[in-house]
Amino acid sequence: MFRFTLKARDTHSRARRGTLHTAHGTVETPTFMAVGTRASVTYLTPSELRETGTQVVLGNTYHLMLRPGPEAFRRVGGIHRFMGWDGPVLTDSGGFQIFSLPSERTINEKGARFKSYINESFHALSPERSIEVQTAIGSDIMMVLDECVDSTSSEEVVTKAMHRTHRWALRSLAARENPAQALFAIVQGGVVPALRAQSAAFLTQHPFDGFAIGGLAVGDTRAQREDTTAFAAELLPQDKPRYLMGVGTPPDLLLAILAGVDMFDCIIPTQLATQGTAFTTRGRVRLKRMAHFDSDAPLDAECPCTTCRTFTRGYLHHLIKANEPLGPRLVSFHNLFYYNALMAEARRHIELGTYAAFAKTQLEAIDRHEHAERE
Amino acid sequence: MFRFTLKARDTHSRARRGTLHTAHGTVETPTFMAVGTRASVTYLTPSELRETGTQVVLGNTYHLMLRPGPEAFRRVGGIHRFMGWDGPVLTDSGGFQIFSLPSERTINEKGARFKSYINESFHALSPERSIEVQTAIGSDIMMVLDECVDSTSSEEVVTKAMHRTHRWALRSLAARENPAQALFAIVQGGVVPALRAQSAAFLTQHPFDGFAIGGLAVGDTRAQREDTTAFAAELLPQDKPRYLMGVGTPPDLLLAILAGVDMFDCIIPTQLATQGTAFTTRGRVRLKRMAHFDSDAPLDAECPCTTCRTFTRGYLHHLIKANEPLGPRLVSFHNLFYYNALMAEARRHIELGTYAAFAKTQLEAIDRHEHAERE
Repeated sequence: MFRFTLKARDTHSRARRGTLHTAHGTVETPTFMAVGTRASVTYLTPSELRETGTQVVLGNTYHLMLRPGPEAFRRVGGIHRFMGWDGPVLTDSGGFQIFSLPSERTINEKGARFKSYINESFHALSPERSIEVQTAIGSDIMMVLDECVDSTSSEEVVTKAMHRTHRWALRSLAARENPAQALFAIVQGGVVPALRAQSAAFLTQHPFDGFAIGGLAVGDTRAQREDTTAFAAELLPQDKPRYLMGVGTPPDLLLAILAGVDMFDCIIPTQLATQGTAFTTRGRVRLKRMAHFDSDAPLDAECPCTTCRTFTRGYLHHLIKANEPLGPRLVSFHNLFYYNALMAEARRHIELGTYAAFAKTQLEAIDRHEHAERE
Repeated sequence: MFRFTLKARDTHSRARRGTLHTAHGTVETPTFMAVGTRASVTYLTPSELRETGTQVVLGNTYHLMLRPGPEAFRRVGGIHRFMGWDGPVLTDSGGFQIFSLPSERTINEKGARFKSYINESFHALSPERSIEVQTAIGSDIMMVLDECVDSTSSEEVVTKAMHRTHRWALRSLAARENPAQALFAIVQGGVVPALRAQSAAFLTQHPFDGFAIGGLAVGDTRAQREDTTAFAAELLPQDKPRYLMGVGTPPDLLLAILAGVDMFDCIIPTQLATQGTAFTTRGRVRLKRMAHFDSDAPLDAECPCTTCRTFTRGYLHHLIKANEPLGPRLVSFHNLFYYNALMAEARRHIELGTYAAFAKTQLEAIDRHEHAERE
């Protein structure tokens, strides 16, 4: 059964060190989850994901219900067997995709009706249907269907969506079939502290296995995101995991951990890799830049990953410029390795009680290097 | 120094078993060379190429002279260091690309002048310049610049191109700088036996390290290609390696080995992989077909490669349909593994003297399975 153990707290911040126990093994937190929208993390095999230190793969109900469809997962016995990944899997509910993907859709109290991104067919996604599909997918952690709105929406719109998200959360809880699959609720309320407080107060009365902070990174400023994350995290129970959805860059993660967040996911490390942008201990490196053309240096001199141990910046620059798929593949591998190594360092420092100082040093170093890279 | 050792001959065919000794190790023949046009074999790392049994990587002078350019290779000390592949490399001269790629170009006795595929700049490629660039690339086997023409051209056109190819071959030989880099000549003459005989007779009088059969697979029929290969191979010296350029499918290879060919290259296994077509012991498998949607079978039940040991046809079908780059990557790996395993089997049978029977059985099996797949 799913369970969260809080193992340590930082001395000078709210950072937490914990362990998630799932049906497919344990997850040390804080953790970054690799985005595998369509049951594949760009370019990488499951054994490479292990090498990068990835603990959890995230799948998307919206994409997976259309292709290969829930029946395909039922037939093979779930996403783990389907994709050959035996570690924990979290599935998003489809709420964010219905909000963000440019397809025809209508949303009412019952749920959403949307047009497939594959063909002209229409599909329905209700809280119950999302749980049914996530049950078929067999993820270790399911998310409730939520109604996402732009953070810049009027308070009235944000409030209505929050209340609907609450009603949908209870319907999701009632629809849950398999107790081995954890279910997380999603705190909404935009960037309005009073609404976030109301959302957290409502949802935490119910037996969810964890709580996510949703609805950020769309329309809000960086300062609003940081403030809202810190405020919302504080409202959540100590004994349940906290997941900040869709965020973010390394500085975003370092700051959110300071605020007491345990779990993250973001497409940035794999998506920017396809453009040749790498995250390193010296900030972002844009491999397309001609400065790397004749560099014999590794991508990140302090990184022990296979990409950094085997190839030069000059060769990676060549692959990216020549549109050779090996380029994004090698950078994706490195970026996930970097994110996971950063999380491992964060965990170590929380255990030592030195996380606040570690985060400060890291943030300053990233800022300094990225400032230099821009000049 | 480059050297070819003939180790065995088949009992009932002209098939040969040999070893190439190069500056970067030995190559057991018959062998299939993986096409790494721009110093990368689609999706795969050098260590994976080793796992597939790849012995030689082929680079293209035309592409590499434009990007990253000869200076980049001089600076790092050659293509092996540049791409992290320490095995043998063969470079094509650029002759075929100048003929086949749709860019503005003029060809005269001096050489070719062509427009870059990257920008609007014009570049010159003469026999001497091709050798100069191949010397910078540092390949173990260099090819002479040849003038390619369509096999369906008039005999006059084919004859003129053949004579120019001869003159260019001698200029290439004179331009050679580094004796550690082998140089192969290219027999031309279209599908006209008398011209092939004339070309072989001329070129084999000169101290080339090996001989290629060029100008096929463009305009000729399969029967013409097979007849010309068999005829041309017979005209070449026993003590030098024979390389059939740009060919082909598994049946093409099996037949050419029967005729005494030692070396092959072709983009088919990696190019068709990007479309989800796999080569297997039961013929071609088109993974896009819905028949594979719910298949739990491996791609090739008789194949011990990582792709076949780890993933189902159903998952590979999903990856290909979803345009996930992991799909072509896994199929590319398998296809190269399959080609190399077929070559290893061919070598074993030549040593045993049973190659003719092996080839017959294989050709019949492939034909039977592909006939069934089409139905």
